[in-house]
Amino acid sequence: MAESWVNSAEGLGSDLHLELERSGPGSRRAALMRALREAVRSGRLAPGTRLPPYRSLAADLGLARNTVADAYAELVAEGWLTARQGSGTRVAQRAAPATPAQRSRTPARAARPAYDLVQGKPDPSAFPRTAWLASARRALTAAPHDVFGPGDPQGRVELRRALAEYLARVRGVRTGAERIVLCSGAAHALRLLAGVVGGTWAVESYGLPFHRALLADEGVRTVPLEVDEDGARVGELHGPGTVLLTPAHQFPTGGPLHPERRAAVVDWARATGGIVLEDDYDGEFRYDRQPVGAVQGLDPDHVVLIGSVSKSLSPTLRIGWMVLPERLVDGVVAAKGGREQWSSATEQLTLADFVESGAYDRHVRRMRQRHRRRRDQLVAALAERAPHVRVTGIAAGLHAVLELPPGTERAVVKAAAWQGLAVEGLSAYRHPGGGPGGDRDGLDGLVVGYATPAEHAYAGALDALCRALPPA
Amino acid sequence: MAESWVNSAEGLGSDLHLELERSGPGSRRAALMRALREAVRSGRLAPGTRLPPYRSLAADLGLARNTVADAYAELVAEGWLTARQGSGTRVAQRAAPATPAQRSRTPARAARPAYDLVQGKPDPSAFPRTAWLASARRALTAAPHDVFGPGDPQGRVELRRALAEYLARVRGVRTGAERIVLCSGAAHALRLLAGVVGGTWAVESYGLPFHRALLADEGVRTVPLEVDEDGARVGELHGPGTVLLTPAHQFPTGGPLHPERRAAVVDWARATGGIVLEDDYDGEFRYDRQPVGAVQGLDPDHVVLIGSVSKSLSPTLRIGWMVLPERLVDGVVAAKGGREQWSSATEQLTLADFVESGAYDRHVRRMRQRHRRRRDQLVAALAERAPHVRVTGIAAGLHAVLELPPGTERAVVKAAAWQGLAVEGLSAYRHPGGGPGGDRDGLDGLVVGYATPAEHAYAGALDALCRALPPA
Repeated sequence: MAESWVNSAEGLGSDLHLELERSGPGSRRAALMRALREAVRSGRLAPGTRLPPYRSLAADLGLARNTVADAYAELVAEGWLTARQGSGTRVAQRAAPATPAQRSRTPARAARPAYDLVQGKPDPSAFPRTAWLASARRALTAAPHDVFGPGDPQGRVELRRALAEYLARVRGVRTGAERIVLCSGAAHALRLLAGVVGGTWAVESYGLPFHRALLADEGVRTVPLEVDEDGARVGELHGPGTVLLTPAHQFPTGGPLHPERRAAVVDWARATGGIVLEDDYDGEFRYDRQPVGAVQGLDPDHVVLIGSVSKSLSPTLRIGWMVLPERLVDGVVAAKGGREQWSSATEQLTLADFVESGAYDRHVRRMRQRHRRRRDQLVAALAERAPHVRVTGIAAGLHAVLELPPGTERAVVKAAAWQGLAVEGLSAYRHPGGGPGGDRDGLDGLVVGYATPAEHAYAGALDALCRALPPA
Repeated sequence: MAESWVNSAEGLGSDLHLELERSGPGSRRAALMRALREAVRSGRLAPGTRLPPYRSLAADLGLARNTVADAYAELVAEGWLTARQGSGTRVAQRAAPATPAQRSRTPARAARPAYDLVQGKPDPSAFPRTAWLASARRALTAAPHDVFGPGDPQGRVELRRALAEYLARVRGVRTGAERIVLCSGAAHALRLLAGVVGGTWAVESYGLPFHRALLADEGVRTVPLEVDEDGARVGELHGPGTVLLTPAHQFPTGGPLHPERRAAVVDWARATGGIVLEDDYDGEFRYDRQPVGAVQGLDPDHVVLIGSVSKSLSPTLRIGWMVLPERLVDGVVAAKGGREQWSSATEQLTLADFVESGAYDRHVRRMRQRHRRRRDQLVAALAERAPHVRVTGIAAGLHAVLELPPGTERAVVKAAAWQGLAVEGLSAYRHPGGGPGGDRDGLDGLVVGYATPAEHAYAGALDALCRALPPA
């Protein structure tokens, strides 16, 4: 029968759980040595791990100090441990057991293309680390204690206030902090709204397959609304219901919703009691001089605005928001649960400071200039090397769609792969139920995420792209 | 017809979305002034908001600089805006529209008891802000760029490695980083496992109602396993299946699972191919000298260890973990989705540094000493003022259970409320299906969360508790 002990000496130090076989042969010292060897052999004690001071381990195990000191000394002699002046006793490096290879799933080990123009991933090297850390320091220093207790499922009011002010100023959104609910991103927002609103949703005939799959998981049936040069054909909406749109910049085809259709969809919602879900995924990124305010500003009681920092800052922070009609707030908060279970409150406070200090505006500005420059480079490269390939949509966002000659999309994506370039075809974004009749039905194209590569890799990515395009 | 414009000047500054009525009466300056007044009146521009420099706004709106400068000057004269040397032009404070009252749901506004002994909430004022910020600085400075891109749903390998080493050292857990999956907390872990394992689960007849409700939501039926002085009666498990246990410190009744039952439940799992889910919610907090290692260490292929920092550090970080048998890893990762959608990667890296730097050990030590002292104070206060009330369970964790005379629980909870003390009765934790036969069937008691109050409030909370207890 093994007795179980742990090092729990007062003061600072490390915990160490050991099983001492008292029934085994020999002295307590021998038992301790066996336990330590086994811990190292099994990998429980990793190479370099610092052992507790022999005094505290002795106190905890109820052994004489000499017994533990001798055991340490012998194991050092045997090469299991190392002892260095000042750094204490540690597990020796060469004592490492064979550790299993890291899962290939981990991106760090996954094979990567030489160039990446897959949309939806802002260049990670552009994250404003210094400014973010400064906000984190200010936020955590000033945070009230309750930040470190169970959180309000609606999200920290500090961030909701900052977003209410920011969205009003930049996107023409009309709201107060009390109608904003924070979440872990646009996908989380859709999950929550699917549970609260439910039913069948009309969605654009082009959109994220990930979102369609997610809604299906949540029991929401989606029916496609054809997309043409003026955006989604909202005139085809009949009776009450829910429609999910990307009005500022149709994803991925790239056009804005025509002003008359913006008015029409709001009229439809008012007349039928319907709900418009406005996915404002990249509303801050317009490169011409005439951006469109959020549709939410036209009717805050019938439009839900969905946004996040995933495109503007980083998808790693897991912070998004919903601006809701008053009647939906309680239901959505209840769907999130009694306590905040998802978004980190410390990150929420950091983002609140980041927005209020103006750092968010500055970062968006920098990114806007960079994305605009990259889009210009893309257009210029195509004009020179593939003038027959048209770039559709407005100068906005983090991606562009290239129209390809009919029937060539698959071959081009394959050719790109041969060039070491990862890029997606447009057809992957088409709603499977998207029947004939749409102007874009069967359209061949490429969705080019020009914000994805690091600065140094962009020219090479464009070159690989041009080499993959079909001849005129 | 309104034209829509935005301030998007190069360089740093703020964005401002404006609707300029060109059809309206008067000059462009008048149109700009109307638009700014409307923006302030509607609350879109909050008091104190800084307006963009007139030069950049003029450039963006295609107006003469003087036109914008004059409009600003007139609105300052009218009291809508204020201009101060150095701080630019801002929306005046008294221009504020009536903003709706903050939702009472927000905890900050919710009525609070004078004293709080509700379990599950470590004192928020004990969060190690300085050490956490130091780890955040080191982690974000050293982080590879890919941290700011889409995340691995298994979680950052840096944190999984740190946890593998820590859990092996402190809890006797046997794992490598490749068998750990990170999540947003124990509740998230149960949701994911419910989807992957499914079926009917045996659970302890006393446990968190929140967890039972969550499992029901996920389609898992729970059947109670009676709890006695030796922990859950695992001998009553028949055939294959899944059992959810709190072996180190039964929640909330407070006993450890008897060594023979630890062995028995592992034998059951091996013989039937069953799965043991080990909720190690407070395994680091033992105040006597003989803690028990994790059951997972006995059989890593049949036991899932579930842990988080919610009790040891703060529930606000939303970081938890599962240590899984190899065969469950892919399913659980798939259930999380193709990308990390929940836990912040920057927080994950910060925690990895916090653990590896030894700061986590130091914090756990400090909290262990503090909790131990508080439990001793509780026991002493009862011995002096309510010797007839017995404290059950071992000296561990962040809560204790007080046994009350039969039939008195409800009255005591009510009396506590009159004393301004929030505390929960034991019966709330009992599984509704927990039929007769259990030693604790119908037991009256209080679940006292002694880690909840701030240091200065603890003595008062104990006093209120003693005043609420029934006379001998």
